[in-house]
Amino acid sequence: MMKPILVFQTDFTYKESAVSAMYGVVKSVDRELEIIDATHEIPQYDIWSASFRLFQPMKFWPQGTVFVSVVDPGVGTPRKGCVALTNDGYYVVTPDNGSLTHLKAWVGIKEVREIDENVNRLKGKNTEGVSVFHGRDVFAYCAARLASGIIDFQGVGPAYPLDEIITYPLLEPVLKDGKVRGIFEIGDPNFGNLWTNIPLETFKQAGFKYGDKLNLTVTHAGKIVYQQRVPFNESFGYVSKGEVTIYNNELMRVSLSVNQGSFCDTFNLSYGPDWVVEFEK
Amino acid sequence: MMKPILVFQTDFTYKESAVSAMYGVVKSVDRELEIIDATHEIPQYDIWSASFRLFQPMKFWPQGTVFVSVVDPGVGTPRKGCVALTNDGYYVVTPDNGSLTHLKAWVGIKEVREIDENVNRLKGKNTEGVSVFHGRDVFAYCAARLASGIIDFQGVGPAYPLDEIITYPLLEPVLKDGKVRGIFEIGDPNFGNLWTNIPLETFKQAGFKYGDKLNLTVTHAGKIVYQQRVPFNESFGYVSKGEVTIYNNELMRVSLSVNQGSFCDTFNLSYGPDWVVEFEK
Amino acid sequence: MMKPILVFQTDFTYKESAVSAMYGVVKSVDRELEIIDATHEIPQYDIWSASFRLFQPMKFWPQGTVFVSVVDPGVGTPRKGCVALTNDGYYVVTPDNGSLTHLKAWVGIKEVREIDENVNRLKGKNTEGVSVFHGRDVFAYCAARLASGIIDFQGVGPAYPLDEIITYPLLEPVLKDGKVRGIFEIGDPNFGNLWTNIPLETFKQAGFKYGDKLNLTVTHAGKIVYQQRVPFNESFGYVSKGEVTIYNNELMRVSLSVNQGSFCDTFNLSYGPDWVVEFEK
Repeated sequence: MMKPILVFQTDFTYKESAVSAMYGVVKSVDRELEIIDATHEIPQYDIWSASFRLFQPMKFWPQGTVFVSVVDPGVGTPRKGCVALTNDGYYVVTPDNGSLTHLKAWVGIKEVREIDENVNRLKGKNTEGVSVFHGRDVFAYCAARLASGIIDFQGVGPAYPLDEIITYPLLEPVLKDGKVRGIFEIGDPNFGNLWTNIPLETFKQAGFKYGDKLNLTVTHAGKIVYQQRVPFNESFGYVSKGEVTIYNNELMRVSLSVNQGSFCDTFNLSYGPDWVVEFEK
Repeated sequence: MMKPILVFQTDFTYKESAVSAMYGVVKSVDRELEIIDATHEIPQYDIWSASFRLFQPMKFWPQGTVFVSVVDPGVGTPRKGCVALTNDGYYVVTPDNGSLTHLKAWVGIKEVREIDENVNRLKGKNTEGVSVFHGRDVFAYCAARLASGIIDFQGVGPAYPLDEIITYPLLEPVLKDGKVRGIFEIGDPNFGNLWTNIPLETFKQAGFKYGDKLNLTVTHAGKIVYQQRVPFNESFGYVSKGEVTIYNNELMRVSLSVNQGSFCDTFNLSYGPDWVVEFEK
Repeated sequence: MMKPILVFQTDFTYKESAVSAMYGVVKSVDRELEIIDATHEIPQYDIWSASFRLFQPMKFWPQGTVFVSVVDPGVGTPRKGCVALTNDGYYVVTPDNGSLTHLKAWVGIKEVREIDENVNRLKGKNTEGVSVFHGRDVFAYCAARLASGIIDFQGVGPAYPLDEIITYPLLEPVLKDGKVRGIFEIGDPNFGNLWTNIPLETFKQAGFKYGDKLNLTVTHAGKIVYQQRVPFNESFGYVSKGEVTIYNNELMRVSLSVNQGSFCDTFNLSYGPDWVVEFEK
């Protein structure tokens, strides 16, 4: 059987050689391991995005894939390094700092273990005194040992209770009196779309169909910042360039787009628990 | 024999997890397939650039390599998804939206087939209702099946006439009365060079040699925007930092550069059919 | 035994298809070779950064790894293309233009050979007349032949004296009268930290310990541009968000950070021999 793939996400960018150092460590543990970039452009220190970006693509990978996520503003301070096993059979090597929020809520964590640095920390190469690069010295090294089969999951370190995992609060959407209310959960920082936390299914329950026009009200911290009648389509391609549409995103959640433009920038909107959206006919 | 490599280009960037989801699909089809990034930074919705960027590196890859190109502003609308086989033996998996322009004109397409989504679209994982991510659900999935040998080229779907392939018009350079006239075909968005559509061969026919100084006139929409006497050299390194030179680019076409600067930005020039260049002694 | 990995760094970015063309050449030489990106975002023409970025991650890779570095403003002019073998057993394929500065001084070069373009330059594919893309036609091609075993190190071309290698001057830090003086050697262009050339060891010799507060004076071209009392910690995570700290970087050298901010941008500082730092209790 082939060894599991290592899929990396960080906020390191490729502007200098930090990623290269991590990948060198992996290849020095086991030359055969396959490494694939998920992204190294998570917004800096943005644990919320790290958590969502872990969730977003995971189910499309083969079971057993080992994800390494290093968005770690607390590196070198006494936060835990851990490996989590999800209910659907993926491993995540990460600081336990909120990066597991979406996976824990939406997929479920089966077991989590604290990385034992006595065993699973790089030795030599003048690294023992370094406190600022656990991506290289702990997470990449431990992940490589796990993927290589040098250690099994128990070999990571001691298990700890699932309810000790650090998470952010998640809001659930509400359908009431024909109105669907949720939040902008996250953005698409490339195309400028905003993704709500509302499943397409909830829209169906509300009786909203492709081709409908809906009243959309966005409030930020309680104040109305956007209010328009907006069409609801399968894809942004169904409206003219520059026009707004509600559409169903790649994760089957209700989203907002300006066709070939940025919804986010055009209307100066963003995401997070303060950004409440409400749809009605 | 080893399975062909999958080479990807998109306008997705690495800012979020779309690329990761596509690559997960490939690895779930066949763990052995090798994936290499060409670029995920094609300018957004810029099908012209997608077409040129497919052509530019292709001949340097092993024959049989499968290129996947996803610059797809019409995703989810009734444009075709296709796989083309070039005259020199490469496969291209792409929306048929103009992305095959340069390959069709400069290399030739031997055969093109429309992707049959009944067979070659991802099933399950809550993707059936998604219309906005054919990169993941159709192009990556179909390309992986082709590269893996699960389907052969016929298995992609029905062939259709080559003259139905969507293309943009291409302009050809002209040599007349000792003047060579062409356009800026494309830019180098990193170093700020501009590449004309004029082969070095045409310069030779005109009697222009390295070391010559040439009168260069650039017009935009008929108006002169740049007019200078410029040296013609093998490489930008032959002029001082900050100076303009005509040089022979990596595809043996006449190009313009500011040594260690941006020709494009310095003189506020761009590319496309409106940007006409004329050279004479 | 597996063939060595090829690790690439350039200033090409991924905005167009230059990287793809290089990697196609490698795969056409030997389909089995493994290619990993170090970075393609070295600042343009910045040979100093290229040199440091080669040094930074190298020791974490398996011995025998072949690094290809192409920051090459002089491409096509009569500068040498070479392959160097370091004292610790890595190969570096690069223009000999200063890119070997840090490796030569801090690791040592065992042997250097000039690439013989009669043997180790790509042939055909309309490349013979191209002078501007040695990354593709010489460095990638020669590196692939070396990694593949088609040529051995002698097969690169003739050896030349080590003292002919082009290098920049390097400054050494000084400990005197309880003061430690050095320079900002390089920056971290992602997180905005600045890295001095002062080993942690020199701080220990000066009697500086984690938890101490130190007077830091930065002069640029002889003029004081920053003067503060700053704490010295294991990691930036030990000070509050937005606060300055001295810390020990991933290479065990003294560095400056604003926690979750940019030290560089906040105080308008940069790196190079003109940026002198002095620490005292």
